Amino acid sequence: MRIGFLQLRPRFGAVKENVRKAIALLDQLSDATVVLPELFNTGYLFRNEEELSSLAETIPGGYTVSEMQKLAKKRQLNIVFGMAQRYKGAYYNSAVCVTSKGKIEVYQKVHLFDREKLFFTRGKSFKIVSTEQAKLGLLVCFDWIFPEAARTLALGGAQILCHPSNLVLPYAKDAMKTRCIENRVFGVTANRIGSERRGTMFLSFTGGSQIVNPAGDVLASASDRSESLRVVEIDVGEALDKNITTNNNLFEDRTPSLYKALVRKRR
Amino acid sequence: MRIGFLQLRPRFGAVKENVRKAIALLDQLSDATVVLPELFNTGYLFRNEEELSSLAETIPGGYTVSEMQKLAKKRQLNIVFGMAQRYKGAYYNSAVCVTSKGKIEVYQKVHLFDREKLFFTRGKSFKIVSTEQAKLGLLVCFDWIFPEAARTLALGGAQILCHPSNLVLPYAKDAMKTRCIENRVFGVTANRIGSERRGTMFLSFTGGSQIVNPAGDVLASASDRSESLRVVEIDVGEALDKNITTNNNLFEDRTPSLYKALVRKRR
Repeated sequence: MRIGFLQLRPRFGAVKENVRKAIALLDQLSDATVVLPELFNTGYLFRNEEELSSLAETIPGGYTVSEMQKLAKKRQLNIVFGMAQRYKGAYYNSAVCVTSKGKIEVYQKVHLFDREKLFFTRGKSFKIVSTEQAKLGLLVCFDWIFPEAARTLALGGAQILCHPSNLVLPYAKDAMKTRCIENRVFGVTANRIGSERRGTMFLSFTGGSQIVNPAGDVLASASDRSESLRVVEIDVGEALDKNITTNNNLFEDRTPSLYKALVRKRR
Repeated sequence: MRIGFLQLRPRFGAVKENVRKAIALLDQLSDATVVLPELFNTGYLFRNEEELSSLAETIPGGYTVSEMQKLAKKRQLNIVFGMAQRYKGAYYNSAVCVTSKGKIEVYQKVHLFDREKLFFTRGKSFKIVSTEQAKLGLLVCFDWIFPEAARTLALGGAQILCHPSNLVLPYAKDAMKTRCIENRVFGVTANRIGSERRGTMFLSFTGGSQIVNPAGDVLASASDRSESLRVVEIDVGEALDKNITTNNNLFEDRTPSLYKALVRKRR
C-alpha cells in the first residue's frame, strides 16, 4: 500500500484557500493513505474562543469535511487531516479520517498543548480507523510526548500512526522514531511550515514531515521550507510482526502487572 | 550534584581483572553518582547456565559487591553497576547500587534480551534507590525499549535513570533522549565497548555512553572505541519540574483513565 504526507503552509483564517490548495495538490494522487497537518484549514493561533467559533466546523456537514470527502472518493484516497471541530456546544482539536469508501471517523485530541487548553475541550478516547489496507491510529501533534498514546493505539492493533501536527518544539521527530521502534509500527508525521503572528503572539512551525518504518528508518522526509507531497510504498505487514530477536516479541515481553502506576489516578 | 558513567571493555570471565580495572579508574573520583555497564564484571556472552553459574555471585557477600562497597565508602560514591546475581537457586541479570553510606540495593532486570532468557530469571519489580542527593531509577539495557519501564520509575519519583547497558542495537541512545524528554528526568546510559566471540556466537558492543538532561540534551558522551570516565555537574531539581509550557505539566496532563490497555493481561 502507499502512505504519504502533505506538508502545507496554511494562511490563518483562509479556510477556502487552504482547503482548495490542499485539494489541488492531492488531486495528483490516487490509491493512497495520506496525512495532512493539524488544523490545516484554519491555521493555529486563535486569539480567543470567538475567533475559534467563527472558524470551527461540524463533522459531517461542514465545508472542509464535505470537500475532503468528495476528493477521497474521486481519487480513491484515505485522508487524515486536522481541523477545529464544533461538537455539542464545545470545540475540539480533531483529526478526521475520510476514506475512499465514504467513511468519516473523528479523533478529538486528548493531550492539548499550551493555549489550546483555553478554548478546546480535551478528547475522551483514542481512535483506530480500519481501512481496507490497514488499521490507522490517530494522534494529533503534542500526543507524541505521551508514550501511552501511541502504545494504546498499537496495542489496539494500529499499524500506522497518522500524526497531523503543528510542531514548534524540536523533539517530536526523533521521538516519533522511538514510538515506531518501541511499537513496531509505521508513523506518518505531517507537519506544517511557515509562521503566524497574531497580536503579540508569534509561532514558527518546523516542517520536517516524515514517514518512519517499524525499524525507525525514515522512508521519506520534507524540508522545513516548502510545501511538499511525499508518498512511499510500504508492506504494512511489517507492523504485524512484533518479533525483534528469536526470543523477543515486543508485545509478549511486556509485563503489564508491573505497569500499574501508569493507570493510577493522580491526586 | 555530580553524575557520570564509566564506559568499559570487560574481558569475558576475568572477574578480578575487570573489577580491579574499574576500581582503579573510579579511584580518581569522589562525591559522585556513577554508572557502569551491564554485567561489567563477567562479560556478556555466557555459553550456558553452567558457565553463568561459575561466574554469578551473591549480593551481598560476593567478591564484586564487596569490592565496590569498599570503594563507594572510601571515595564517597554511589555506584550503579550490572552483574550476574545468584539468588535463591536462580540467576538474575541485576543492576546493583552501592551507596557512599553503605546501602546495597538490587534491581533484577525485568525485560530480558534474546539468549538471556535461556538462563536468567526475569525480575519481578522495578527499583528506585534514594540517595542523599537524588532518587535513582534503575534500568538494565533492553528495558529501554519498553516505555512503561522508565515511566514507572519516573512516576515513582526517580530523577535520574541509571542504565547499565551492553547495547548491540543502534536505537537505544536516541530512545533514551526520548525517555528523558517524556519523563523530564536525567538519564545515564553506561554502555560497554569491544566484542565477544564465544564458539559460534559473536557480538560487538556499541559504546557511546551518554548523560542526558530532562530537555533531551546530551551533556556528555563517549566514543565507541575507548574506555572512558565522564562526570558532569547537574541540578537534579530540574527533574522535579514537569512543566514544559505555562499550561502543560507532563504528569498532570496524563489521562490514566484512557491508558487501561497498557495494564491489560494479554492472552
